[in-house]
Amino acid sequence: MRLRNNPKANEILENHKDIVVFNPNENKGKWHDVFGNDHPIYIEIGMGKGDFIIENAKTYPDINFIGIEKFPSVMVGALKKIDEEEPLANLRLMKVDAIELNDIFLENEVSRIYLNFSDPWPKKKHAKRRLTSETFLPIYQNILKRDGELILKTDNRTLFEYSLISFQQFGLQFEDVCLDLHHSDGYEDNIQTEYERKFSPFGPIYRIVTKFKGDES
Amino acid sequence: MRLRNNPKANEILENHKDIVVFNPNENKGKWHDVFGNDHPIYIEIGMGKGDFIIENAKTYPDINFIGIEKFPSVMVGALKKIDEEEPLANLRLMKVDAIELNDIFLENEVSRIYLNFSDPWPKKKHAKRRLTSETFLPIYQNILKRDGELILKTDNRTLFEYSLISFQQFGLQFEDVCLDLHHSDGYEDNIQTEYERKFSPFGPIYRIVTKFKGDES
Ligand SMILES: C[S@@+](CC[C@H](N)C(=O)[O-])C[C@H]1O[C@@H](n2cnc3c(N)ncnc32)[C@H](O)[C@@H]1O
Ligand SMILES: C[S@@+](CC[C@H](N)C(=O)[O-])C[C@H]1O[C@@H](n2cnc3c(N)ncnc32)[C@H](O)[C@@H]1O
Repeated sequence: MRLRNNPKANEILENHKDIVVFNPNENKGKWHDVFGNDHPIYIEIGMGKGDFIIENAKTYPDINFIGIEKFPSVMVGALKKIDEEEPLANLRLMKVDAIELNDIFLENEVSRIYLNFSDPWPKKKHAKRRLTSETFLPIYQNILKRDGELILKTDNRTLFEYSLISFQQFGLQFEDVCLDLHHSDGYEDNIQTEYERKFSPFGPIYRIVTKFKGDES
Repeated sequence: MRLRNNPKANEILENHKDIVVFNPNENKGKWHDVFGNDHPIYIEIGMGKGDFIIENAKTYPDINFIGIEKFPSVMVGALKKIDEEEPLANLRLMKVDAIELNDIFLENEVSRIYLNFSDPWPKKKHAKRRLTSETFLPIYQNILKRDGELILKTDNRTLFEYSLISFQQFGLQFEDVCLDLHHSDGYEDNIQTEYERKFSPFGPIYRIVTKFKGDES
């Protein structure tokens, strides 16, 4: 059950001021101050209950991670997990919609963007809402560093096929394409997401690593 | 058994002068004369035993088809099938290596190129030999009409992943990407190849439809 307007959820967020960033647009251009260092910033858009970003924060202490999610009720799931961990100085969460990211990050402020199991919006007429559509790509292009990667992982075939075309048409550079992440060599450092654990038994996990070409953009 | 130097095979080819084109480079720029009409020309590179191109020739009498194969012993398989059919005025075969195609077709003479289950050359050091590598893409670009499509179908995941990247890097436009041709809507007119029939029970068939962008090439 996804509680979209949940006062209880908002209260729980309020009680995690160390990890949840309120008014994140006040940090635009100043995210390194938030973390107190100048390590690269990696974000996950649509982090859900946070398994992936929490595990990343634990594995890579020299990277700063920001988990982004639009539903407070979903974020609560991540906060519950964080409460059970040792404090993670390199992790922040924020309740934000992807469409607002230009208000929150300055150009080149982000070093990597993860899209994991993004909502597929299966109907063609909703294609523009997909997080890999031309609605969102200019935003990512703006906030991402020149050499920064946009990485999509999904089990949804239609979303993946669509994204390959959308990325190509936007002029993205393909760094790596994998059509079965769990049955390929060279991906041993893969950190699984909640949805990945749930759905990988039923079919392949697709992944693409892309860059906005430095020279032409 | 693939008989690379097979005098018997060459003899069988000689006995099919109506369908096998000898000295095909003499037809460069004049392929419409060979067929006696100006219908579009579609070619399959590496047609193997010809199931796909023969079925296409039967289904689309207003398209001229040319099956290309480098091994005469393999072509013999196609000729055996053709002998069992009604004569097909819109089909020709030739024993040619893809690398020679610039000597055989003039610029823009071909309207579509099919690559079906091309040899995967799985070792990285042989990647340049793959029919979707930068070795071959400039040749296809040259002989293909502006709006002509290059269509790859394969069950080989590594070849397909490689081809997506190779096509993107060469600047090809992605028209359609399908990661499971036999379990998708909208592909009811798919004509199967011999390898497709043999290998589709064991995993997905991948397909991509691409174009060399008219404006920039
Ligand atoms: C299918 S879940 C996947 C969660 C997690 N990434 C995983 O792989 O387990 C997608 C999440 O993205 C969030 N989401 C969808 N669109 C969003 C947007 N425009 N901005 C921020 N979050 C979004 C949804 O609320 C949902 O929690
Ligand atoms: C794996 S078979 C596939 C045959 C057929 N297209 C199918 O799908 O059933 C690949 C064929 O391509 C041919 N071939 C490989 N490289 C070629 C080249 N450079 N030029 C022409 N034919 C080639 C091989 O001899 C072989 O018959």
